[in-house]
Amino acid sequence: MQIAMIGDKMVPLAKLEPIYCDRGFYFGDGVYEVVRSYDGKMFALEEHLARFKKSLSAIKIEGVDTDQVRKRVQKAFEGAGIANAKIYFHVTRGSAPREHSWEVDLKPNFFLTVTELPDKTTIKNKGISVSSCPDLRWKRCDIKSLNLLANVLARQDATKKGSAEAILVTERGLITEGAASAFFAIFGQTLQTAPLTANILPSITRKYVIKAGKTIGLKIVEESLMPEQARSADELFIAVTTQDIVPVVKFDNKTIGGGQPGKYTISLIEEFRTFTR
Amino acid sequence: MQIAMIGDKMVPLAKLEPIYCDRGFYFGDGVYEVVRSYDGKMFALEEHLARFKKSLSAIKIEGVDTDQVRKRVQKAFEGAGIANAKIYFHVTRGSAPREHSWEVDLKPNFFLTVTELPDKTTIKNKGISVSSCPDLRWKRCDIKSLNLLANVLARQDATKKGSAEAILVTERGLITEGAASAFFAIFGQTLQTAPLTANILPSITRKYVIKAGKTIGLKIVEESLMPEQARSADELFIAVTTQDIVPVVKFDNKTIGGGQPGKYTISLIEEFRTFTR
Repeated sequence: MQIAMIGDKMVPLAKLEPIYCDRGFYFGDGVYEVVRSYDGKMFALEEHLARFKKSLSAIKIEGVDTDQVRKRVQKAFEGAGIANAKIYFHVTRGSAPREHSWEVDLKPNFFLTVTELPDKTTIKNKGISVSSCPDLRWKRCDIKSLNLLANVLARQDATKKGSAEAILVTERGLITEGAASAFFAIFGQTLQTAPLTANILPSITRKYVIKAGKTIGLKIVEESLMPEQARSADELFIAVTTQDIVPVVKFDNKTIGGGQPGKYTISLIEEFRTFTR
Repeated sequence: MQIAMIGDKMVPLAKLEPIYCDRGFYFGDGVYEVVRSYDGKMFALEEHLARFKKSLSAIKIEGVDTDQVRKRVQKAFEGAGIANAKIYFHVTRGSAPREHSWEVDLKPNFFLTVTELPDKTTIKNKGISVSSCPDLRWKRCDIKSLNLLANVLARQDATKKGSAEAILVTERGLITEGAASAFFAIFGQTLQTAPLTANILPSITRKYVIKAGKTIGLKIVEESLMPEQARSADELFIAVTTQDIVPVVKFDNKTIGGGQPGKYTISLIEEFRTFTR
């Protein structure tokens, strides 16, 4: 008899709950999004849904109705009643016996959580330390997939070094992005970040940061940075959905901008706030 | 109230079963093994356990007792009573709210299935077609992790082309291995396969193939092949735990060895059989 074992518990395979045979488990075969709300209002939901659709299409998960996803997100957000909420959702290709290839009629699985975002005002006022780490990820980081082991290991490496984020560096010595954030440098009145390639997630926060940068009169340069350049920047920051802009005051133990969030970074945070109201 | 949603069903987050918060889901944060039995006898279990231990250590999952894993595998295998069984097992870092970094006291989750292997005699007698595909995987393919989306997409690409396996080719034009197998070529009396690097899984079947190759008098060369070279080989085959040696009779639509399994490949299959008795 075919069987399964969960911890020490044996069960007939036929009686196993489908969640255990989810391809999300076996292969990380799924894509996800994280949306947040500011004071009861969701931010950039449509852009997240559009990116989600692209991710689904890139890994060929079919039959997911974006309108239905939107309704679920809204229903869950309203049901939770959390003003500053983090809404995580993923779709996996479905539950099936473990085979790399998949059957076309497989039904995708949807999962979502709504949690309360902790208040990060202190961190944003103080700034964070980051440390560089080799970028070991796969070659399609433009897809927001559940294959995040390289990101997890990089983040843990940063944590171990007392940093809040890992900044990923390719074999060629170029910074791509953070383990779970976009990365920006300011030199004079120039805002620099890596260009969008297959190595980079098309971050929605990044897009709004660039918009804010233009508004406050910064010149935008989309060119990859080397860690030496980052260390010599006037200001550094990361951008991520859950916290938008977070100033970086230390890069690989080198103090940036006298150890204080930079003036343009602070202006960008203020400008960003106007988008989220 | 923090909530979760499974499909259309909303549940309080506090009442969500831990399986839904498994880091295997969120990040593919786990490692696995596949062992098989031949006529009621497990093959190379100790080597699989040793590799599993290395994989766990490489991604820093602590607190997993290999002796306990062995006992579980044996108990499940005996409980199933399947002569030609495929035993899949994985350990994930544990269940926790979704954060990239992890708490040191997190308890790993163990999961296993024992299923019946289909009889592949016909396929082994006939040989299979394979097709090349860009190797988009991460930079630590020596770790047998649950981050397998690149493998899945490559395999599906092969399936679409009417092939049974995808042969992965790096940006530099070198073959690493199959989406879920090792890859071998025979030129004259030389058996060639890629060397073990961070790009390659240290396949246990590969090790036994090399042993068999030496026994039947083949010269072993561990050097990467280019697809052009593979197309000009006298014989090709893949090696994978569940099927050991499978002859390849077509590579990217080019017929190999007159479309029949090669003589040395057949000898290797016979020699391999002596290890599994």
